[in-house]
Amino acid sequence: MSADDSTSSTSSTPEGAGPIYRRAVIVGVGLLGGSIGWALRNRQLAHEVVGVGRPGKPPLLAAAMGCIDRAESDLALAARDADLVICCAPVQQIPEHVLACSQVMNPEGFITDVGSTKLTIAQQIQQHSQRQQSNIAFIGSHPLAGGTSSGPEQARADLLEGSLVLVTPDSDTPLEIIARAEKLWQSLGARTICMPPQMHDQALAQTSHLPHIVAAALAASTAQDLVPLTATGWRSTTRIASGNAKLWRQILEENRLPALQALQNFAKVLEHWLAALEKGDGDALEQLLEQGKTTRDALGS
Amino acid sequence: MSADDSTSSTSSTPEGAGPIYRRAVIVGVGLLGGSIGWALRNRQLAHEVVGVGRPGKPPLLAAAMGCIDRAESDLALAARDADLVICCAPVQQIPEHVLACSQVMNPEGFITDVGSTKLTIAQQIQQHSQRQQSNIAFIGSHPLAGGTSSGPEQARADLLEGSLVLVTPDSDTPLEIIARAEKLWQSLGARTICMPPQMHDQALAQTSHLPHIVAAALAASTAQDLVPLTATGWRSTTRIASGNAKLWRQILEENRLPALQALQNFAKVLEHWLAALEKGDGDALEQLLEQGKTTRDALGS
Repeated sequence: MSADDSTSSTSSTPEGAGPIYRRAVIVGVGLLGGSIGWALRNRQLAHEVVGVGRPGKPPLLAAAMGCIDRAESDLALAARDADLVICCAPVQQIPEHVLACSQVMNPEGFITDVGSTKLTIAQQIQQHSQRQQSNIAFIGSHPLAGGTSSGPEQARADLLEGSLVLVTPDSDTPLEIIARAEKLWQSLGARTICMPPQMHDQALAQTSHLPHIVAAALAASTAQDLVPLTATGWRSTTRIASGNAKLWRQILEENRLPALQALQNFAKVLEHWLAALEKGDGDALEQLLEQGKTTRDALGS
Repeated sequence: MSADDSTSSTSSTPEGAGPIYRRAVIVGVGLLGGSIGWALRNRQLAHEVVGVGRPGKPPLLAAAMGCIDRAESDLALAARDADLVICCAPVQQIPEHVLACSQVMNPEGFITDVGSTKLTIAQQIQQHSQRQQSNIAFIGSHPLAGGTSSGPEQARADLLEGSLVLVTPDSDTPLEIIARAEKLWQSLGARTICMPPQMHDQALAQTSHLPHIVAAALAASTAQDLVPLTATGWRSTTRIASGNAKLWRQILEENRLPALQALQNFAKVLEHWLAALEKGDGDALEQLLEQGKTTRDALGS
């Protein structure tokens, strides 16, 4: 089945057969986890979708909304016999969840995640695999979908449709697991691109983590009493600064060096801007404006 | 008439009387000029709305769209006997247009503009007034409405509805002209705030010009081959980098020192970010993220 086949149909299951998964477990049922669970259910890709919240806090709202079939708060209990686990928790919790699930789930199943950073997670899981002398059937994923708001009430069954999911095998990941992860995301209507975790982190430092830093810095550098004088420009440039600070702290801690490098590179571009403004060099200003416009226009609106 | 009265009705004219203006002239009929002309016509605020293009280039498309009643390319001819002139040309052309119109228009009328910078324009017009020993009935305006696209095909009759227009009298502007400018914008459904040109320029350096610089620098610092890996965050943070580089060059040249100061202030915030990432100081990162979030959340989505 090609990605096109799966995206052209939202109701039939891939290959026209029954559900692919007997028990799919979503750990952390917020915007992304809720949307994935909902899509798995809508597309009848799993006999059962189990959502796991924090200890003592089963994700009842997500269950009431129809994002999951069943709400659990005990990870080891929920993941027993699962043949698919998707970790949608904050990045620094993902390795421990992966390890906990790997010990109780169906040995034929596999685990993936949706974290915004990939190398540290992969390294930590690999270290545990070596220590336990057992292979954990894990492969990282990062759906480029979501938003600044969080929580299952923001979930949408079609969130992944037409989106891009980066799948991040390392050199030890069996080809079969790569194929199964790609099939999972394509079944939900997404396109997939595979790349090593390190390449992912360096790319996303530029395309996602740096924009977050810049948006937060721009918002912070605006005097509060001038906020009523802002218009659509400031509004879109700073939009993502509204994201959850604790989650973004984790992302930047995990991807510290690539994010630092991206920020240093950005600071160099700003030095050209400062020099052009200091000198009043109109030609240099126009050239800097054109450079930004060229890259931005490559994307379309 | 209060601003509320005018915004609560889109079809009747203010004070229930006939049109306010006999001949309203729009110089530069693009997105903003076209929208203003269209709104003046829809609200029956002028007997005639004349649009002026560049020499030899009457704005025929805007006339065909209904943004203006008549398309002209000779400014002096079009502005003859006008009782309202709104200059919507690039900022560096505004003073000469204002002077040209002031010599032929109805001496009871007034002129305003929609430029993104205000002090240089006001100073240049004041110098000419003094040289000619005649008062030019000019007052600056800046509607915080528009978009990155330009041209009359982007015009919307409701563009100004609910928007904010900054009106920028200087110490010599007669109170009566201030009142008439505020009435003009309120008649088109906008709210108005008055402030001196210098205060406007310092505020907008932070709320509009700095975001443009930052968006352009962010886009330019992203490797072209990574653009396909961007998502909604990068997309909104860089959106305004698509703006017209020649127009933005003029804006930054006109408002060079306030823009430089805003950029220097932003660069200081970035230094805190660089230090926090270099040290791997998670608490500092979270504090910086929270600072941005607090200012952004003050605005709402």
